[in-house]
Amino acid sequence: MNLAAPRPARPAALPLLVSMGDPCGIGPETIVAAALRGELDDAVVVGDPAVLQRAAGFVRLAGGGGRDDGPRRPIAVIGSPGDAALLPAGVLKVWPLQGPALDLAALPIGQVHADAGRAAARAVRQAAAAVQAGLGAALVTAPLHKEALAAAGEHHPGHTELLAELAGTPERPADVRMMLANEHLKTVLVTVHCSLREAIDRVTFEAVLDTLRIAHRSAAAWGQPTPRIAVAGLNPHAGEGGLFGREEIETIAPAIAAARAEGIDARGPHAPDTVFMRARQGEFDLVLAMYHDQGLIPVKYLGLDEGVNVTLGLPFVRTSPDHGTAFDIAGRGIADPASLIAALRMARRLIRV
Amino acid sequence: MNLAAPRPARPAALPLLVSMGDPCGIGPETIVAAALRGELDDAVVVGDPAVLQRAAGFVRLAGGGGRDDGPRRPIAVIGSPGDAALLPAGVLKVWPLQGPALDLAALPIGQVHADAGRAAARAVRQAAAAVQAGLGAALVTAPLHKEALAAAGEHHPGHTELLAELAGTPERPADVRMMLANEHLKTVLVTVHCSLREAIDRVTFEAVLDTLRIAHRSAAAWGQPTPRIAVAGLNPHAGEGGLFGREEIETIAPAIAAARAEGIDARGPHAPDTVFMRARQGEFDLVLAMYHDQGLIPVKYLGLDEGVNVTLGLPFVRTSPDHGTAFDIAGRGIADPASLIAALRMARRLIRV
Repeated sequence: MNLAAPRPARPAALPLLVSMGDPCGIGPETIVAAALRGELDDAVVVGDPAVLQRAAGFVRLAGGGGRDDGPRRPIAVIGSPGDAALLPAGVLKVWPLQGPALDLAALPIGQVHADAGRAAARAVRQAAAAVQAGLGAALVTAPLHKEALAAAGEHHPGHTELLAELAGTPERPADVRMMLANEHLKTVLVTVHCSLREAIDRVTFEAVLDTLRIAHRSAAAWGQPTPRIAVAGLNPHAGEGGLFGREEIETIAPAIAAARAEGIDARGPHAPDTVFMRARQGEFDLVLAMYHDQGLIPVKYLGLDEGVNVTLGLPFVRTSPDHGTAFDIAGRGIADPASLIAALRMARRLIRV
Repeated sequence: MNLAAPRPARPAALPLLVSMGDPCGIGPETIVAAALRGELDDAVVVGDPAVLQRAAGFVRLAGGGGRDDGPRRPIAVIGSPGDAALLPAGVLKVWPLQGPALDLAALPIGQVHADAGRAAARAVRQAAAAVQAGLGAALVTAPLHKEALAAAGEHHPGHTELLAELAGTPERPADVRMMLANEHLKTVLVTVHCSLREAIDRVTFEAVLDTLRIAHRSAAAWGQPTPRIAVAGLNPHAGEGGLFGREEIETIAPAIAAARAEGIDARGPHAPDTVFMRARQGEFDLVLAMYHDQGLIPVKYLGLDEGVNVTLGLPFVRTSPDHGTAFDIAGRGIADPASLIAALRMARRLIRV
């Protein structure tokens, strides 16, 4: 399914599917906390009911000052995402993991465990397949832990790689890009997890042009057909005419020109130190960042609470909170659900087409 | 004079010295506009009285809706910075440039001119020498233009290099660093104006350690004897234990350890994407950034108005607004003096020892 292609109207009743994340991290707690604030009324959690019950206990104890009289929400186990529509809004709906049973609620909190990684990956696979099969409106993923994933024998370092493979094939994964977004700023990364030196090498004509295409197509899918995309330079002052590096002249500007020839409203390359401020002030809809920290420093600068990770290039909307499993505070019921709530809201915004 | 050495109490009457910047840029206009807001009452402008008269006309015309009845401020020409104390606060005090006369007020606005570069450099030299001679409390520099400087035969690309030489010798300039600061964040740069690839090469053990020493000493000079200095990593996630680059392990962490052994409260290396947010929230007093955009993106993200450039490593306080000559809007009286005002206020804060 091409993101640029017109899509049939989606029945309003389709739920967001939320994968529970690593059962030993803060994912389940943040899901319960978000549900208590009424943020999961249109969602189905794909995960383990016992893990969510345990998480509800953590949150209750924290909310009740250590006594088990904090806020409650009924948890209902459903047989398929479609059954969610049959239940009232105030119920937290859980679609259990398929496959061999795992005793997940007995796993020690805040630790790496192979079964935890196995369950987290299973939740993502099951939820993504359901969205692709038309049973869910979008995928929102709670955080998983790389080491637990590795301990479970998963070769994917994280969600993005796993989803790219699910949306394509193991040999030919979908060409995806990471977008980081908050209320004020959307930034799409050309390169992500590698050393800064390697990132410079990876900023090629093709990488910049492909990222522009993916960003443009994705915006069309979420209802913004010709987004104004600012392209950040790689070097200070965008190279200052070649004085501080030639990548802008030799690589980035030609990729922008090629994108413009395809009808993409790509602009720049602009000086990196001001382009994010300009986008925040409304001059651009999206900023293409050349490397991880160039894009993430401004998105995170005002606080982590509202940062949302969006995967572009998938045949469906996928968002996630902009934090990890936070093993150090897991199990205490104090994890802030703000970023998960922002991810849920962003998903709703992006599917409202 | 060593910044770390205790300094004798400074007489309160010593004025800030403000170099006028390139006469064809927005420097003189922003000086007049700041004076109209009462921000130069304790300052002396080092520059050309006719240029400032012309600038006052631009600001009046803009303030009076195109008629010459906008706000006014008397301009007084003084023979030495010490004479400023004899004049009332509401007067804009100008200490003229020494040396051969230049017909600066006749130069076309918004264009590169050798005489403009010559005058701008002369203002900086005269003001810096006066501060070093104890005639001024600090130096605040209005923007100059690199090409005008070059046209005047100056080999320094900008203020920082010129001041480093004035404070040292042409063969052995002072070891200075650029600090960018606003209300919420102070960031000191290990490397500045070079390509990103070259910046990576310049992040050496010595460069990081020297920057930590300069930052630490400077903070002591402005009354903060043991600042909490966070050191940003170079790579995403500060290298993630060597997975995304080894500079943190091989270069940055050893430099931090060496600094700590000298009593410097250096911490990190921290993940670059969150360290600025953490500093903004109060966890650190200063952040050491490894390269230009790493440090400047967060400082500028909330707007340019309050960004101030501070040169560390000089034997006196020097600040400047965080913008250039803006030839495109010069002469229209509309340039925003906010960054100059922030530079004046920052200078006052840093000398209040």
